[in-house]
Amino acid sequence: MTRPSLEFWYEFASTYSYLAAMRIEREAEAAGIEIVWRPFLLGPIFAAQGWTTSPFNLYPAKGRYMWRDMEREAAALGLPCRRPDPFPQNSLLAARVALLGVDQGWGPAFSKSVFHAEFGLGRSVSDADLIAELLRDLGLAPAPVFAAAQAEEHKARLRTQCDEARERGIFGAPTFITADGEMFWGNDRLDRALAWAARAGKAA
Amino acid sequence: MTRPSLEFWYEFASTYSYLAAMRIEREAEAAGIEIVWRPFLLGPIFAAQGWTTSPFNLYPAKGRYMWRDMEREAAALGLPCRRPDPFPQNSLLAARVALLGVDQGWGPAFSKSVFHAEFGLGRSVSDADLIAELLRDLGLAPAPVFAAAQAEEHKARLRTQCDEARERGIFGAPTFITADGEMFWGNDRLDRALAWAARAGKAA
Repeated sequence: MTRPSLEFWYEFASTYSYLAAMRIEREAEAAGIEIVWRPFLLGPIFAAQGWTTSPFNLYPAKGRYMWRDMEREAAALGLPCRRPDPFPQNSLLAARVALLGVDQGWGPAFSKSVFHAEFGLGRSVSDADLIAELLRDLGLAPAPVFAAAQAEEHKARLRTQCDEARERGIFGAPTFITADGEMFWGNDRLDRALAWAARAGKAA
Repeated sequence: MTRPSLEFWYEFASTYSYLAAMRIEREAEAAGIEIVWRPFLLGPIFAAQGWTTSPFNLYPAKGRYMWRDMEREAAALGLPCRRPDPFPQNSLLAARVALLGVDQGWGPAFSKSVFHAEFGLGRSVSDADLIAELLRDLGLAPAPVFAAAQAEEHKARLRTQCDEARERGIFGAPTFITADGEMFWGNDRLDRALAWAARAGKAA
């Protein structure tokens, strides 16, 4: 019997995706669930509803609250919390590389290293030099990774992921989707998503 | 020693305020916290940022998800879940009456009865006849309550509450604020808010 699975849709510019990425493996292991890492971009989804930046910038009271909430929630998880400048970071290159990494088995490790650099250390992950540094830290040669990640075919694959996200009703990140199609939005819903995936796995 | 307190800011048109209202007394009792019920209106805050209706209507994908999430979260709490038509309901009269009820000691009971009628039974709480029925169920005569709730001075008091909410950075509901000024947004943060209030109470 294969383990039940849960799709983890995440965006590198998303603060709550950071919290989810840093704890999902531990929680999933405890629940006996296989995580399918699915990097995507929220930008096109936000743009389609008229937003030109993060809602946390568009709505300052919500943004101020979010950063305070992040401090508290990160502390509760024992994680550092820094605000990158600018926020949000351009996450296009990181997402292309992560999508390649998921195919090649180093996607989760790379994704966690991006999130740690960005929201743990406050570094600019839109910077290709930083992405190269993170790849080298994982023992990967940046040049061939960048070449593959920026090939037309791979760029199109990321666009297809983003289309799929929108078609499946994703409007924010992180989002979790079970094998039977149940959607859960937000780091706060990870526990519910894992429990649903475990039940659906038993019923299947 | 007085018990530590927690302000509970809620809006009758808010689905997640329903979930919070129906469980906050039990949770607060267990945590040894006094709840200060603070009905207010989100409409003026939403209008100031250019929203003319609920964000769950403005952003349909988010709205579809929210109703599904409400079904799940209500079920987890053993609560019924119905969608009133129209959504959101005009909550002005209910808020005026609830604010009066908080002064007179029947605010929490009245507020829970409004939420139950609206999101448990799907009834129109913008309807004065329904509000009158709910008041009678509590043993209150509707006519003098309506007269007091719609007096100019009381209407101004509700406006003052809404101004205070905006000035304190409230942007959604439910919102919880501890005596030392820490803000928590959303039914999902009730546990954290109670824990913070309990710690702040011990330190004071």
